[in-house]
Amino acid sequence: MFVLITYDISTVDEKGKRRLRKVAKICVNFGQRVQNSVFECKIDPAQCKKIEIDLEKIIDPKQDSLRFYYLGSSKGAKVKHIGVRVSYDIEGPIII
Amino acid sequence: MFVLITYDISTVDEKGKRRLRKVAKICVNFGQRVQNSVFECKIDPAQCKKIEIDLEKIIDPKQDSLRFYYLGSSKGAKVKHIGVRVSYDIEGPIII
Repeated sequence: MFVLITYDISTVDEKGKRRLRKVAKICVNFGQRVQNSVFECKIDPAQCKKIEIDLEKIIDPKQDSLRFYYLGSSKGAKVKHIGVRVSYDIEGPIII
Repeated sequence: MFVLITYDISTVDEKGKRRLRKVAKICVNFGQRVQNSVFECKIDPAQCKKIEIDLEKIIDPKQDSLRFYYLGSSKGAKVKHIGVRVSYDIEGPIII
């Protein structure tokens, strides 16, 4: 299945910055980072459940948000990209 | 049609911050802000074309990126949300 994961992590403090890095590290194991907080994942339902559980453990639900878009078949959605394509270093500084 | 718009705008300088505000202002006219840089839009093909053209004029393609996910019918995709739901003030300070 094709799952799009998007997130907002509040990085007003150090704890938030750590959460952001942890979330990115998990997502990068399952999919392709296409923007700073957007990952495209081709995963099976078991993997999908795992990533949901893992991410839910990390985030602070009072400050952060996660969204999973279940886009059905492995073909996924039609996508148009405009602009730069960047490779992100999840160990690097936080990008606004 | 249901279109998901995601963006990364480089805000390392004032020009970038202005671009970010302009992009958000346009998106908010067409859809629902669900995260800082993620909008869900229920729009017709003409509106979709307009928003693509408008946004492409604003962004710097060497620094910024835009993605449009065309999710078909107005029903859109199955979505799971975890965590906080925030209302954003696009005139307010930039949220990381």
